[in-house]
Amino acid sequence: MERILIDETPKLIGQVVKLQGWVNIRRDHGKLIFIDLRDRSGKIQMVIIPDKEDAHRAAKEIRSEYIIEVEGLVKARPGGAKNEKIPTGGVEIEVERLDVISKPEVELPVDISVEELNLNLDTLLDNRTLVLRNEKVKAIFKIYAEMIGAYARIVKQEGFLEIKTPKILDSATEGGANFFKIKYFDKDAYLAQSPQFYKQAGVGIFERVFEVGSVFRAEPHYTTRHVNEYIGLDAEMGFIGGFEDVMAELEKVMAYVMVEVSRNCQNELEAYGAQIMPVEKIPRMKLTEALDILDKEYGKKMDEVDIDAEGERLICEWVKKNHNSDFVFLTHYPTNIRPFYSMPSPDPQYTETFDLLFMGVEIASGGQRIHNYGQLVASMKKHKLDPEEFRHYLDIFKYGIPPHGGWGLGSERIVQKILGLGSIKEAILFPRDVKRLTP
Amino acid sequence: MERILIDETPKLIGQVVKLQGWVNIRRDHGKLIFIDLRDRSGKIQMVIIPDKEDAHRAAKEIRSEYIIEVEGLVKARPGGAKNEKIPTGGVEIEVERLDVISKPEVELPVDISVEELNLNLDTLLDNRTLVLRNEKVKAIFKIYAEMIGAYARIVKQEGFLEIKTPKILDSATEGGANFFKIKYFDKDAYLAQSPQFYKQAGVGIFERVFEVGSVFRAEPHYTTRHVNEYIGLDAEMGFIGGFEDVMAELEKVMAYVMVEVSRNCQNELEAYGAQIMPVEKIPRMKLTEALDILDKEYGKKMDEVDIDAEGERLICEWVKKNHNSDFVFLTHYPTNIRPFYSMPSPDPQYTETFDLLFMGVEIASGGQRIHNYGQLVASMKKHKLDPEEFRHYLDIFKYGIPPHGGWGLGSERIVQKILGLGSIKEAILFPRDVKRLTP
Repeated sequence: MERILIDETPKLIGQVVKLQGWVNIRRDHGKLIFIDLRDRSGKIQMVIIPDKEDAHRAAKEIRSEYIIEVEGLVKARPGGAKNEKIPTGGVEIEVERLDVISKPEVELPVDISVEELNLNLDTLLDNRTLVLRNEKVKAIFKIYAEMIGAYARIVKQEGFLEIKTPKILDSATEGGANFFKIKYFDKDAYLAQSPQFYKQAGVGIFERVFEVGSVFRAEPHYTTRHVNEYIGLDAEMGFIGGFEDVMAELEKVMAYVMVEVSRNCQNELEAYGAQIMPVEKIPRMKLTEALDILDKEYGKKMDEVDIDAEGERLICEWVKKNHNSDFVFLTHYPTNIRPFYSMPSPDPQYTETFDLLFMGVEIASGGQRIHNYGQLVASMKKHKLDPEEFRHYLDIFKYGIPPHGGWGLGSERIVQKILGLGSIKEAILFPRDVKRLTP
Repeated sequence: MERILIDETPKLIGQVVKLQGWVNIRRDHGKLIFIDLRDRSGKIQMVIIPDKEDAHRAAKEIRSEYIIEVEGLVKARPGGAKNEKIPTGGVEIEVERLDVISKPEVELPVDISVEELNLNLDTLLDNRTLVLRNEKVKAIFKIYAEMIGAYARIVKQEGFLEIKTPKILDSATEGGANFFKIKYFDKDAYLAQSPQFYKQAGVGIFERVFEVGSVFRAEPHYTTRHVNEYIGLDAEMGFIGGFEDVMAELEKVMAYVMVEVSRNCQNELEAYGAQIMPVEKIPRMKLTEALDILDKEYGKKMDEVDIDAEGERLICEWVKKNHNSDFVFLTHYPTNIRPFYSMPSPDPQYTETFDLLFMGVEIASGGQRIHNYGQLVASMKKHKLDPEEFRHYLDIFKYGIPPHGGWGLGSERIVQKILGLGSIKEAILFPRDVKRLTP
């Protein structure tokens, strides 16, 4: 008999089927043994009656996380016994045969069969390979997969070509301090902290490019929204009229991603009580306007023209209240806090750049880039960078490149905020921070 | 007027349109100036007549790789003047206005307007940002993007969940010598040379997982098929009956990928004279049988039970001749040349593993993995590895995991072989080898 998946059972009432999966939990009611079985498609209740002697004997030994194979009859559950919370809640399996395929070798350090784990972050991360089996934790990564899949679909539809760019670089450009250093044969090399230069080269070749790839940041952060390795959703587009075109494109992308996640992950979102608001027009606001609001409405003053984590949280709160939007674009960041390649605004103190905030945190940075060779070299010098170190990057501009811009989106923060997770680390299978390199 | 893309022009005969793109080449015929313009969608011929004085004056200054904006009338080309080789060969643009958007600052080191570049590999790679603009070179990366997109589509359809796993590891496991070392804050760390352990953990959680991600190999190779950083197409699946199930799945995946690439990249394949044969049943052959054939048919003897690059090439030649297949699975590699986690065959000198060869080279390695904790620890010891160093990996097996297996596919080699490129480096935008860290 061929194994079937649990989510196929509701169509097979009255038939004997073969299932394989993990024991979520066993419960005994008198002589009846109940087992909740899970596989990649869902969860189902199974019952083992004493008459099926071999199966009953085998079932008595079963514990959580045993991996088993069963054959049994699919039966409709009577009305009162239905579990409305899961799609297979209307059926159960009356087990005829039960075999153990594999089993835990140790006492499980955490009980993952419960609906709500209620563990602290370190416990969640230290016992990662086990904790990730919990149904509610798994839901995070189904949403994550849907989200990055939807991102790739929409940008392709918009004419962006998927590219893969090197993560090992010969020099720590773009600033310097937050690069990890590698021993590369007889040379030193560095891990890419963004695909910025390569996606700009991509514009010179393909006009519109995107990349889903690893990003490495050697920043010693201890926050709920930073990790040292993450997946960036980057895109860059040529022939723009200005950075408004970049924001308009990103708005379209986020609208699509949110629709797709709500449509395709209903059960997973429900498990977190999360609701996704349709994205329409995302409000745009100059950074200086945002700082005025923070001052007037919240009595929060910044020492310079910049915004901190608290400011981002408060301005999102204000936008939600006043514009009913979970998103807001802050624009025109000052030149001194943006990278050298940022296109200056008509008032050259500011840049044609933006951050996209979502539910209290920055999830994307972007803007128009300088495309004129001479202007770029001048900007490097102003930022005290040596053009000679950037000669390969400068080749892009020597050969001519159209006006262009793009964004870098942090994939994990999006899922973190959609689900209201306390830390970004919960949205990463095996996160890396200053102290954590395992598991 | 809104810019349109070049591939929209055949539907717009008789209308004035606005185009933006790169000048591929300018040709003067008496007083007529012809310009081939390219954008992300294609290429089109434009003509500038002397009557349009401003445009004609501007066009005289134009050189290859100038980025321009034009307005002009879409006209049908008379029968004899049609270019059958491109989809827009039946139309041309009679230019009314021409403006330069951006232009090269230097003499171009290579002429990329030609159909065939005929450059040596170093020139191709040293001038990468320019060379990649050549139409035929660009075609490689359209095929590459289609290929990895098709891979993701088919494995998702087959129930694999997309995961992203860390590339920074705390220890150089799985062997040791071919890891790049990183300075990670106050610790040493290593770059992942495969997502092997994490995708096995993924089986314990999601049953079927796949990853498209960066792979780093510190091997000092100087060949046409090795680089030190590449994109791996990994997958791992639980509840297998044996490693035949893994091969069957990979066969299905390759068949789909090849169909999709042939269907969606016809022009790009044609530029290389490449034809993709439909994949049906891929022949399977024990490594020892392959070695017998090499001995008998080609007089090639190996010192041990292993195969080298020449052997892989010859056995593919033999399979092509005798079974008319571009693919072949070699199976049952000896235990001593496979990683410790490989499932031993009933004859424990051999393993339940395979390599998939395609047109002369290995493109994938895979097999069944050991899933029993005790057996795995014993295998580590036999391979002279310290189980204590693998304690996080071993947790996966302590908590129980089903029989499973999977593969790692090298994405760039597939495209290299489909197109008959001399080096894998031609199939990578910005390749990394022992000597090359730039551009």
